[in-house]
Amino acid sequence: MTESAPRRGRPGHDQAAVLRVATELFTRQGYDATSVGDVARELGVSKSAIYHHVPSKEHLLERVVGEALDALSEALDDVSARHADTAGTRLRDAVRSSVVVLAAHLPAVTLLLRVHGNTPAERAALDRRRQVDQRLAAMVREAVDEGAVRADLDPLLISRLLFGMVNSLTEWVRPDLDADALADAVTTLAFDGLST
Amino acid sequence: MTESAPRRGRPGHDQAAVLRVATELFTRQGYDATSVGDVARELGVSKSAIYHHVPSKEHLLERVVGEALDALSEALDDVSARHADTAGTRLRDAVRSSVVVLAAHLPAVTLLLRVHGNTPAERAALDRRRQVDQRLAAMVREAVDEGAVRADLDPLLISRLLFGMVNSLTEWVRPDLDADALADAVTTLAFDGLST
Repeated sequence: MTESAPRRGRPGHDQAAVLRVATELFTRQGYDATSVGDVARELGVSKSAIYHHVPSKEHLLERVVGEALDALSEALDDVSARHADTAGTRLRDAVRSSVVVLAAHLPAVTLLLRVHGNTPAERAALDRRRQVDQRLAAMVREAVDEGAVRADLDPLLISRLLFGMVNSLTEWVRPDLDADALADAVTTLAFDGLST
Repeated sequence: MTESAPRRGRPGHDQAAVLRVATELFTRQGYDATSVGDVARELGVSKSAIYHHVPSKEHLLERVVGEALDALSEALDDVSARHADTAGTRLRDAVRSSVVVLAAHLPAVTLLLRVHGNTPAERAALDRRRQVDQRLAAMVREAVDEGAVRADLDPLLISRLLFGMVNSLTEWVRPDLDADALADAVTTLAFDGLST
């Protein structure tokens, strides 16, 4: 987000600010209902100042959801590469990492989770999200096959419940929250259970 | 939803149909962005035909979120009245019941969870929702105090994670799903944990 240097004399109107405001507006009023003109108005600049940074509204969405999905994909690559670990440990680490990524990229992840399939740009984002969901579901299946995770629940259902819980964090998590403590709490509840 | 009989010769334009279409539109495009005229247009009737059933858009929202909140409150009353049960059992049953209520009132619960505080009618709905959330949080605290639920996690955090998982069901649950099996899966994951 720092490829383009802030323009002299226009503090805050650099590319990062454009992406930040676009994320806020897309999340609040929907991607479909937000125009590049709205982003410009919110920043107090002209539309052409926005087009200086990004070629289109589609690119704005792609950049923001890309930030969330790239971070999540990298975290999963990292976990998946630990071949010495069991599938159960890898799954637990994947859940942990997805909480940490969510907290570190909160606005981008929140937008990603609110995207609907109304436009081609949104459908492309949903397709990429579905690929990540499928990777996570595959990790659940491996952990079940290994015997580390209970086999009396459908692996796809486990995956939906687990990441439904993780994704619900966007409803209330604030940027100053201790992401590691939160990640520990989520994995403790999910894997060890609440009962004493 | 059957207080007002369907008007003769206008099948499908009874009060239940008005509420159903209002719920769909409020959920899809937001309460704020939806007018009574939109509801009328979707049903192919005049605005005055809508006002025959409900006095205002605010009442439409109140009725729909009321359906969800009344069902949830009744279920919690029911569980809370079982004084012979332990607090741990009551909490488990409350989680179970909230899944069953969610599945039985899926459109109303989905709308309730998407309501933002933009208007007084929405803020009233959020206030009522908050009361239910506080009841659930109190049940978690009782179960922790009793020793049935782990004390190494903050009860408020447990409550948010638990009902975050339950509420995330609105993202993918379909009306033909077996609600009892789903409720069992949710309580098993949450209380017994995924690890073998």
